[in-house]
Amino acid sequence: MTDESSSPTDEPVRTLPAVAVVDAQSPGNIGTIARAMKNFGFNDLLLVDPPALDPDGEAYGFAGHAREDILPNATEISFTELVDTYHTIGCTAVTNEDDNSHVRFPYSTPADLADRLPTVAASTALVFGRERVGLTNEELARIDEICSIPANAEYPVLNLGQAATITLYELRRLTLSDETQLPAIERVRAPEQTIDRLYDQWAALLEEINHPEEKQEKTMRMLRRVFGRADLTEREVNTLLGLLRRATERPEEK
Amino acid sequence: MTDESSSPTDEPVRTLPAVAVVDAQSPGNIGTIARAMKNFGFNDLLLVDPPALDPDGEAYGFAGHAREDILPNATEISFTELVDTYHTIGCTAVTNEDDNSHVRFPYSTPADLADRLPTVAASTALVFGRERVGLTNEELARIDEICSIPANAEYPVLNLGQAATITLYELRRLTLSDETQLPAIERVRAPEQTIDRLYDQWAALLEEINHPEEKQEKTMRMLRRVFGRADLTEREVNTLLGLLRRATERPEEK
Repeated sequence: MTDESSSPTDEPVRTLPAVAVVDAQSPGNIGTIARAMKNFGFNDLLLVDPPALDPDGEAYGFAGHAREDILPNATEISFTELVDTYHTIGCTAVTNEDDNSHVRFPYSTPADLADRLPTVAASTALVFGRERVGLTNEELARIDEICSIPANAEYPVLNLGQAATITLYELRRLTLSDETQLPAIERVRAPEQTIDRLYDQWAALLEEINHPEEKQEKTMRMLRRVFGRADLTEREVNTLLGLLRRATERPEEK
Repeated sequence: MTDESSSPTDEPVRTLPAVAVVDAQSPGNIGTIARAMKNFGFNDLLLVDPPALDPDGEAYGFAGHAREDILPNATEISFTELVDTYHTIGCTAVTNEDDNSHVRFPYSTPADLADRLPTVAASTALVFGRERVGLTNEELARIDEICSIPANAEYPVLNLGQAATITLYELRRLTLSDETQLPAIERVRAPEQTIDRLYDQWAALLEEINHPEEKQEKTMRMLRRVFGRADLTEREVNTLLGLLRRATERPEEK
């Protein structure tokens, strides 16, 4: 697991998985994969028997910002060199049902890999096959492990670009850690005291509009359920509070 | 909680989310989305201002087996009809950083939705915007809640087809798990028309309490966000409606 060439004090460094595409026919798919790599923080694109990638063609057209680095820096490599250099994970839609054959079984899902790979320091390549038939049994037999995306039993065969996109999305934890474009916090719930003031104001309003006393408790409970599961922000509570206060304290003269 | 029109023995049935694409320019992206729908078990494709879909063109070329059903059965719909008919979840790469604005915050990730939606019975549509600019702020303001895919902070903008593919992949639990496990419905969201009456009543109350005209739109948007993510039941909406109506129409004599 440790890198023999590193000094004794060095911690093993996790290398980001490379992405290998074997014998793709469509430049557009390679562009799509490059874009997904950029979106999810991968860098190294390896191409086995690629089609010509015209800078004015579909590969560059589909690559988004990856046209500036990932695509022009892609490395052409032979399949043998690929399996010799990397721990290879071959992606396929069709697995074996059981262990009668080991070619496509056992397999991991991308989510399984996302759980496991972050704790592994090694050179890894995710390997995607050609459009129509994916990776052949002969290729899969030379590959270290199998990955398959769970999908509709009636039609589990994903398009190459889409399969790679989903796999890289699941494995983003390897690359992005917490550094996504999204704020780490999805919601900021208002302080409990603030929320309590909201309920107090509702209670005042109920009284003001002569809500039947016997229904009061039940209604307050419902309000607490509704707002409880909405995780109100402080700003939302304050705006609601203002509205309710004015609804409650409306001047008698209209 | 019960649907008045259904027989007493009927269980609330979870409806699969529809997938809506707003103003897409590229037929190929629509084909890609249709294929992802088929791969992950979705059926209903709604198209707002779609490009022409030539049976010999890219939409059908990219759709895989979805060319046989999802694509030819797609429904053209206006944006207004979409937001009036469905609980809408708008997908965008760019969220607000915090709760200073309600247009793009709070948000959920597709994984969050996959946790929450399986327990909600209601008509829901996942809404994806046009290629370059996604959904506009004006469109998002009319949409019930926000979804965003975590990605590389330096380049979080996914291609339309890839964004939809990832979202549908995450939500596959809504569709594919039906084969193997009973859906556990915990809530039945109120019909969209009922929820719209709630917003109408809020609007009437705002007017009655002289809420500043320039804040009206923003406040309504906030209310939509708050109640949008609370998945109100019909009973909850009706109770709220009654409270708000009485708050609005309070007799002048106290």
